[in-house]
Amino acid sequence: MKRFALKGTICYSASLQELKVLEQGYLLCEDGVSRGVVEKLPGDWADCEVRDYGNRLIIPGMSDLHMHAPQYTFRGTGMDLELLDWLNQETFPEEARYGDLDYADRAYTIFAENMKRGATTRACIFGTLHREATELLMEKLEQTGIRAMVGKVNMDRNSPDILRERDAKESAEDTKVWLREVAEKRASGQWTHVEPILTPRFIPSCTDELMRELKRIQTEYRLPVQSHLSENFGEIGWVKELCPDSKFYGDAYDQFGLFGGDGCPTVMAHCVHSGEEEQQLMKERGVWVAHCPQSNTNLSSGIAPIREYLDKGLKVGLGSDVAGGSTESIFRAITDAIQVSKLRWRLVDETRKPLTFAEGFYLATKGGGSFFGKVGSFEEGYELDAVVLDDSSFKSPRPLTPEQRLERICYLTDGISQIAAKYVAGENVQL
Amino acid sequence: MKRFALKGTICYSASLQELKVLEQGYLLCEDGVSRGVVEKLPGDWADCEVRDYGNRLIIPGMSDLHMHAPQYTFRGTGMDLELLDWLNQETFPEEARYGDLDYADRAYTIFAENMKRGATTRACIFGTLHREATELLMEKLEQTGIRAMVGKVNMDRNSPDILRERDAKESAEDTKVWLREVAEKRASGQWTHVEPILTPRFIPSCTDELMRELKRIQTEYRLPVQSHLSENFGEIGWVKELCPDSKFYGDAYDQFGLFGGDGCPTVMAHCVHSGEEEQQLMKERGVWVAHCPQSNTNLSSGIAPIREYLDKGLKVGLGSDVAGGSTESIFRAITDAIQVSKLRWRLVDETRKPLTFAEGFYLATKGGGSFFGKVGSFEEGYELDAVVLDDSSFKSPRPLTPEQRLERICYLTDGISQIAAKYVAGENVQL
Repeated sequence: MKRFALKGTICYSASLQELKVLEQGYLLCEDGVSRGVVEKLPGDWADCEVRDYGNRLIIPGMSDLHMHAPQYTFRGTGMDLELLDWLNQETFPEEARYGDLDYADRAYTIFAENMKRGATTRACIFGTLHREATELLMEKLEQTGIRAMVGKVNMDRNSPDILRERDAKESAEDTKVWLREVAEKRASGQWTHVEPILTPRFIPSCTDELMRELKRIQTEYRLPVQSHLSENFGEIGWVKELCPDSKFYGDAYDQFGLFGGDGCPTVMAHCVHSGEEEQQLMKERGVWVAHCPQSNTNLSSGIAPIREYLDKGLKVGLGSDVAGGSTESIFRAITDAIQVSKLRWRLVDETRKPLTFAEGFYLATKGGGSFFGKVGSFEEGYELDAVVLDDSSFKSPRPLTPEQRLERICYLTDGISQIAAKYVAGENVQL
Repeated sequence: MKRFALKGTICYSASLQELKVLEQGYLLCEDGVSRGVVEKLPGDWADCEVRDYGNRLIIPGMSDLHMHAPQYTFRGTGMDLELLDWLNQETFPEEARYGDLDYADRAYTIFAENMKRGATTRACIFGTLHREATELLMEKLEQTGIRAMVGKVNMDRNSPDILRERDAKESAEDTKVWLREVAEKRASGQWTHVEPILTPRFIPSCTDELMRELKRIQTEYRLPVQSHLSENFGEIGWVKELCPDSKFYGDAYDQFGLFGGDGCPTVMAHCVHSGEEEQQLMKERGVWVAHCPQSNTNLSSGIAPIREYLDKGLKVGLGSDVAGGSTESIFRAITDAIQVSKLRWRLVDETRKPLTFAEGFYLATKGGGSFFGKVGSFEEGYELDAVVLDDSSFKSPRPLTPEQRLERICYLTDGISQIAAKYVAGENVQL
């Protein structure tokens, strides 16, 4: 039984509205799991190792529910386009490069290094359709110490020849090879941090036959699923054309049994324009919303009605959506989520209040963390993902409260410079 | 005659749409003024000093048309409030602290240091109502090497006792003392970088009598003017109550002769909700719009119709509006301006296209720079404000174009870490 305690100014979400703060508190860790936050060490913890972070803030690790690792190379460029043009002009040509393993190695080395240095401890990550490059990505991520669900992308229609699988059969076969290889690495103990997630790119990229194949695979392997949903009007209209029998976009996934409800966690990115019926089905099926506010802004998609989703009891976390979003920093996703919710309140629907800072922080930690189990809080029984923040470079002429310091870090950090230490399920990541 | 050349990858705006780029180019500087960008040094420049920045980008210095120096202390905190509540709960209590010169010294030292290290070379800055603290701010800014117009704020109504001048007379007298002291420092050559700008806080803070006093002062001293305009519906309604004879908010300034048109540059922050008449008057009077996209988002004010203003030929620059905006980085203001313009296009008015990256960059440089004269471009005759950017920390597996690198820096920088060198009117600022 391995025990230690982290000491510092501890901040975490108990609920959507409640941000808990304890200065000079102790966060107890036993076998990678939190045993709670306390003012004084309990008697039977008296001999445990205490790692004293002084005045620094200790917060739960953040979860990124949606990002594309291969797109990291062109983040923050080509932002003058809408979704479908952006896919064709920027994204697909770049993703095609990952057929070259040397390129993939160079690109994913940079990506993994920055993921390691940031505050994200859990992530749902799209690779490309390339099996070998995706395994390389998983290997790089394994070495970072963060926990990641990584998907080899399936796509067999509506993209250029250089980035399209020949047919459903080939896509499915390649996926099964990938899953077997991943299973071997996990069985041998070579990989303990990364696992596979089924990743049909989105309805326009997958034939009906491919979707049926993927359902068979999912049933056999009991895999979680990630995809895109109701991001952009052009995309939504296209799905309606491609699946004339679907009642709404989410129903097109559901008709193939790939919309949750089977005990396998399913996360759908964006949900900017999900109507009543789609929301209802997501709730019934327990589908997570990966809210990607910066991407939805950059690609002119709109603003997802997150307050409405929360009011209705949907599960919501945040996604950076690199490279629709320019940065992998979930701090930025927090402030973006708050900011766009204010604009939505002002411009679209004044009956739904903007998100508060505490709520944005919850989504980044406990909200998104729930996709991975008991993750994202410091309450007893949660896996101990923790990030230590050093905000001493943000000088102040007077003392700030811990809440003010935390909010300021979220608004000002570049996502890396303030990270002083990081733990994933109790393991100290070497930054 | 002092001549030198900067060598590197040179990027600058020729017009709103046209971003000019020259790799391995020379930017010629003579007595603080640009003599143009050339591929090869002209014969009569053969002996001049060349400062070779290699592969780094060289861009014009940026202009911040609106910010509040005393609010820098609480940037990125207290963002769960709308404008008028935020003023009363966060802003006014903080600004009241600047009656204490020790506090002002500590706070303004931090502010000035960060302004020096960033990309801003010109700024319009609000101080507080305190004359001595404002002079201290000017002294600190003078030492940074950037050029700033700084205002002692006038406010004699509708704020708490701790932050309100007794009456119009006292406010005016204090302003005149300030202006005489500034004039002495400038006449003696002690201050060459900072100058005064008349700063009625906004209509709700200034009695009619004070506005008349300020007009007299402006006429005597030929001062530029900065204030706030049409930011928030609550504020606009309040102005209508306070000035029942005004046809619109801007008209309330105009009735006192403080809305441009007199040869003194006048800049109004925000203009989120300026109607046709107000826009028309701004155009006639040559009033600059300081577009502050992050602040307008944080305070739930809305999204200013910048495309409409540009189409109509209004003068527009960007403002950080610290601390309505969380950062002084004008890089961030560029991307915020682009992002909110996309949301406005999607949610409010699809007839007005979003801003492109080139347009956002123009607003930050040549657009805002025009407030200060021939500033913000490298065309011949412009004052040579230049910033050298080192983006080597943003690793890439393949070469990017200069345009891509510039866009990426704007999206990813924290505003300081990529600044490798800085020139203001030809003077090299020691970072």
